[in-house]
Amino acid sequence: MTPETRNGMLLRTIEWIPDRGGTLVPGRVRFIDQTLLPQELKFVETRSAQEMAEAIRALRVRGAPAIGIAGAMGAALAAQAAGGDAAAVLNALERAAENLQRTRPTAVNLAWALDRIRRRAREAAQAGVDAGDLKARVAAEATAIRDEDARMCRAIGEHGVHLLRDGCRVLTHCNAGSLATAEYGTALAPVYVARERGWNIHVFADETRPHLQGARLTAWELQANGVPVTLICDNMAAAAMRDKAVSAVLVGADRIAANGDVANKIGTYGLALLARSHRIPFYVLAPTSTFDSRTLSGADIPIEQRAGEEVVNIHGRSVAPPGVDVWAPIFDVTPAELVTAFVCERGILRPPFSESIRRVLS
Amino acid sequence: MTPETRNGMLLRTIEWIPDRGGTLVPGRVRFIDQTLLPQELKFVETRSAQEMAEAIRALRVRGAPAIGIAGAMGAALAAQAAGGDAAAVLNALERAAENLQRTRPTAVNLAWALDRIRRRAREAAQAGVDAGDLKARVAAEATAIRDEDARMCRAIGEHGVHLLRDGCRVLTHCNAGSLATAEYGTALAPVYVARERGWNIHVFADETRPHLQGARLTAWELQANGVPVTLICDNMAAAAMRDKAVSAVLVGADRIAANGDVANKIGTYGLALLARSHRIPFYVLAPTSTFDSRTLSGADIPIEQRAGEEVVNIHGRSVAPPGVDVWAPIFDVTPAELVTAFVCERGILRPPFSESIRRVLS
Repeated sequence: MTPETRNGMLLRTIEWIPDRGGTLVPGRVRFIDQTLLPQELKFVETRSAQEMAEAIRALRVRGAPAIGIAGAMGAALAAQAAGGDAAAVLNALERAAENLQRTRPTAVNLAWALDRIRRRAREAAQAGVDAGDLKARVAAEATAIRDEDARMCRAIGEHGVHLLRDGCRVLTHCNAGSLATAEYGTALAPVYVARERGWNIHVFADETRPHLQGARLTAWELQANGVPVTLICDNMAAAAMRDKAVSAVLVGADRIAANGDVANKIGTYGLALLARSHRIPFYVLAPTSTFDSRTLSGADIPIEQRAGEEVVNIHGRSVAPPGVDVWAPIFDVTPAELVTAFVCERGILRPPFSESIRRVLS
Repeated sequence: MTPETRNGMLLRTIEWIPDRGGTLVPGRVRFIDQTLLPQELKFVETRSAQEMAEAIRALRVRGAPAIGIAGAMGAALAAQAAGGDAAAVLNALERAAENLQRTRPTAVNLAWALDRIRRRAREAAQAGVDAGDLKARVAAEATAIRDEDARMCRAIGEHGVHLLRDGCRVLTHCNAGSLATAEYGTALAPVYVARERGWNIHVFADETRPHLQGARLTAWELQANGVPVTLICDNMAAAAMRDKAVSAVLVGADRIAANGDVANKIGTYGLALLARSHRIPFYVLAPTSTFDSRTLSGADIPIEQRAGEEVVNIHGRSVAPPGVDVWAPIFDVTPAELVTAFVCERGILRPPFSESIRRVLS
C-alpha cells in the first residue's frame, strides 16, 4: 500500500494533478480503480473526459461525492483538451458534461457538480476570458469541489461524533467512507473523527451484494486505518443488531428528497426497518449537496436497475442456473419516518425533516 | 439433466440403491453433490459411512430432512460393511452414528434419524437376529425414513396450499425445496402442489449468502420444474416485499423449539421482521421431526458458526482484504411471535404455539 496519506487519513480517492507547479492546467486526473480493491491498489491517470465517464459507468470511481468530483474533473479535462477559442472550449465542456451526466442517473451529486462547473464556465465565457483562462478556471472549480468535499466530510464527522460514544458498535452498509469521497467519507466520518480522539468504535460492515462494496472497500479502508471492523453478510444484519449489541446504523445517501426520503444502496431500506424493530437509531450522513429540494419525495427518485448478470456473476463464474430471471435494483428508497436523524456538514437534522431540511438548505 | 423424475417431480436427492432386486443389502447410497450445482449435476455413489459423514459436513447433502436421511443411510452403510456377529454390526453402527452426529450440530433431524436407526438396530440385536438380518433391517429403516419424508413433504404441500392463491407471489430463503428433502421439499411443497393444480405462483428466491443455496439450488430446482422464479440478493427482500407485491414468505426450519422459536438459515430472523413490517404472513414449513419438544426455546438451540473463509471466498477468490475479521453464524433464531403459522404434515399450526405444537406432537 502506498503510504500516501494525509492527516493520518486514507489515500486520496481522486485528485487533480498539475503537470507542473504553479498552474493547474495542463493537468491530469488520478484516481483509485476501486473495482480492483481489495486485491490490488491501482492508481489510474487520465487526461480523457471519455475515460472518466467510462470509469464512473464501470464503478471504478463510486460513491456519490466522489462521482460528483469525478464528473467535474472529467468536464475540466474535456475543456483542457479542446482546441479553438473560449466558445469552442465551452462547447466541448457542455458536450462532455452531457455525456458524463448519462453515466449514473440516481446520484444527485453528479448533476450538482456538473451544473456547477457548467455555470462557472458560462460565466467565464460571458466575462470574455480567453480559452486558456477558461480552462484554468474550470480546473480550479473542479479542484475546489474536491477540497470543499474534504472539508464537508470532516465537518460531518465532527457533528456526527456526538451521536456515538467510546466503546460503541455501529453497523454500516455499502461504502460511504473515505473511498466514496475525497477524504473521511460521510457515514464513516464520525468513526474516523472518534478514532482521532482515541475512541474505540467497532464497525460491523455489511458485505453489500451485488457489488460487495462493504467487503471490498469498507472493510479494506477501515482495516487500513486501524479501525476494528467485522465483516458480515447482508442477511446477518438483523442477528448482529440483536446479538452483537449494535448501537447505531450509519449509512450514506445518494439522494435525499425534500421530505427526507432517502435513496441509497439497495438494502438500506431493509436495514432501516430492522433498526426500527431493534430500537436502534438509524442515521443518514451526507453533505447538503445530496439533498435535492426539487425532488419532493422518494417516489420522484429514478431507481437505477443493473443487469442481472452483475448479481449472478461473481469472479467470472455464475452462481445461478443459466437464464434465470434476476431483479437487480441497485438503490432503494427509505421513507423519512425510518430515519432518526440526518447529519450534514452544517449539523444534525431532526424530524420533522421537511422543515429541518428546508432550513438547512436555505 | 438426467430425466429421472417421479410424480413429475425432481431428481431424487438421495436414495438407497440395492445391488440387485429383492433385497436391500448389499446396496449403496446415491446422492446429488449439491456443491456442484447449478453448473453440474453429479450423482455420487458410496458404500462408506465415512464418505457419507464427509458429504454432510461439506454440504454435499444439505437441508435438514435430507441430512437426516443421509445420516440414517450412512449408519446403514456402516452396519453393512461390518464383519462379525450381530453385536459387532451393532457396535459398528453405533460408532458410525456418533461420527455422523458430529457433522452438523444444529439440525435436529440428524439426531432424530440416528436415534431412530440405533433404536431399530438395538431392538433387532436384542431380539437375537443374525448379522445379515440386522443389516437388512437397518437398511430398511433408512429407506423407510426416506419414503416417510417424501409422504410428509407431500402432506405439507397439501396443507400449505390453502395459504396460497392462484397468481400470488411468495418469497423464500435458502433451499427448503426438493433438494433439501427426498421430494417436494418443505417450504416449496405448497408451490409444487399449486403447480400441479395449474396455479401460477411466482417465487422470489433470496440468493442466501454465504453459501448461495437460493441462487444455486432453489432457482435451479424451480426453473427445472417450470415454476416462475426471480432471483434477488438477500438485501433486496425488503424492497421486493414493498415494490413487488409479495404476499407471503415461506421458509423451512432446522429446529423448532417447544415454544415455536425457529432456528433456520441465517437471514430468516431478518426476513421475519421485514415481513411483519410489511404485514405479510410469515410461514414456517417443516415436518414434525423438526419440532423438538426437549428444546424449550430458541435460547437453547446451539448456533453453528462457520469459518469466515466461507464468507470471503467466492469461486476460489477472496472478496475481502486479507485477515479481515468475519462473523459467520450460519443459522439464526426467529422468535415465535414473528411466525404467522407453522405447516407440518399433520396440518396448519396457529398461535399460541406452545399449545398447538404440544398438541400436534402428542
